[in-house]
Amino acid sequence: MLVEGVHFRKGASLEAVGWKGMAVNISDIAAMGGVPRHAVVSMGLPKKSPHAAAQRLSLGLRRCAKRFGVNWVGGDTVQSRGVVLDVAILGEVEPKRLIKRTGARPGDLLLVTGRLGGAVRSGRHLTFTPRVAEGRVLGAQTKLHAMIDISDGLLTDCARLCSASRVGAILETGCIPRHRGAGLKSALCGGEDFELLMAVAESEAGPLLRWAKQNLKSGLTCVGHVVARRPGQGQVVCVDTKGKRPSIHCRGFQHFK
Amino acid sequence: MLVEGVHFRKGASLEAVGWKGMAVNISDIAAMGGVPRHAVVSMGLPKKSPHAAAQRLSLGLRRCAKRFGVNWVGGDTVQSRGVVLDVAILGEVEPKRLIKRTGARPGDLLLVTGRLGGAVRSGRHLTFTPRVAEGRVLGAQTKLHAMIDISDGLLTDCARLCSASRVGAILETGCIPRHRGAGLKSALCGGEDFELLMAVAESEAGPLLRWAKQNLKSGLTCVGHVVARRPGQGQVVCVDTKGKRPSIHCRGFQHFK
Repeated sequence: MLVEGVHFRKGASLEAVGWKGMAVNISDIAAMGGVPRHAVVSMGLPKKSPHAAAQRLSLGLRRCAKRFGVNWVGGDTVQSRGVVLDVAILGEVEPKRLIKRTGARPGDLLLVTGRLGGAVRSGRHLTFTPRVAEGRVLGAQTKLHAMIDISDGLLTDCARLCSASRVGAILETGCIPRHRGAGLKSALCGGEDFELLMAVAESEAGPLLRWAKQNLKSGLTCVGHVVARRPGQGQVVCVDTKGKRPSIHCRGFQHFK
Repeated sequence: MLVEGVHFRKGASLEAVGWKGMAVNISDIAAMGGVPRHAVVSMGLPKKSPHAAAQRLSLGLRRCAKRFGVNWVGGDTVQSRGVVLDVAILGEVEPKRLIKRTGARPGDLLLVTGRLGGAVRSGRHLTFTPRVAEGRVLGAQTKLHAMIDISDGLLTDCARLCSASRVGAILETGCIPRHRGAGLKSALCGGEDFELLMAVAESEAGPLLRWAKQNLKSGLTCVGHVVARRPGQGQVVCVDTKGKRPSIHCRGFQHFK
């Protein structure tokens, strides 16, 4: 659910908001190894010029739906104070190719598609391409133990994956692929990247990374590994190339403080 | 999508709002002859005491989901100015038992479950029971040509059914079953009744009404019939017992004026 004044400012391009509303949902399907199929869309529109707002939102929604083969099958349109957009999506995946957050095992390597950081500053958070194709082809190449899309920052979403799998993780800060101009903190904590983070058996990771180098346009990078969970310690620990813990403090995006 | 200040006033029982958010969706499934199965729920919550609001909404949502065997499988929780609730639901129906809005034919009789009018004044609009069982058993008894749930008033939703079926309708105002204390205008235009309106072949309507008298607790009443569409004339015409057109002017609920 995207809310004016919270997720985008009043006056933002509603076409971009429409694209994003569809794309964040498609990204969730991509993170499970699936293909997005059908979407329902609810719009809350301001009393003043609701039709113009609906049209702009619809442009972006339709463009994104078309790009990813999604049928926009229905929804609701109501009055609200600011613009509110909510999309629900149904995806399909072969049972054998379903990837959950729960399967990461100690010893797995953690791989990430694309580059991280600076999404909001650069405007990429409104125009990003969900990694459906990447999720599909990587899942077809190798058994992925667990996967999640990075919506709230690498640290936060890595912790979510670890929590679901009851494991811990060590991220190597020197390895994290960053967008040009993005600092380490932004790459770790900025959020809204919508890249995929996955856990793969160590023996499979080498061949997969080599395959990706030839075939995966977005790129694929090893950023750390999964460890057994140690009670009382942080679920995700960042280390630099000397094995020292750099002092990174961030909590990802907190919906409620 | 239910929005504070538009669909319910600030300070309303959020448990009731939760029930309604789930129930209006279940009602849409009922109107197609289906069974509701899975729901995703998005909540926009105020910065101030979001957890309390989420808990109250969840109570109502869960109660309604449980009552109708719906799995609440996921959703989203975000910050917003006032409370916003959006539910998307997936239902199932045997292909042969799917009922659309498009199949009404001239000569069909129009039947309605339950009683109409006064829903908002009485508070029934927040506590109503979606007619899933009625939709199922009526569809099993007889081939229903078309069906719709009455959310925006009998006149408005009858016009929607007629428009989808490319036909017209004549409603007999003297036949419309009303709640105690509800006037004719409220029964025709009040909305939020969430009863089912269906079109049935005339030959089937008699047996169905007799069956319903014995077996359908909500009741079932003939309120009019379907006619061929006459270009340039209103899609739905109301007549009183003398065949005169009573002067009823309402437009149902207009989301945007």
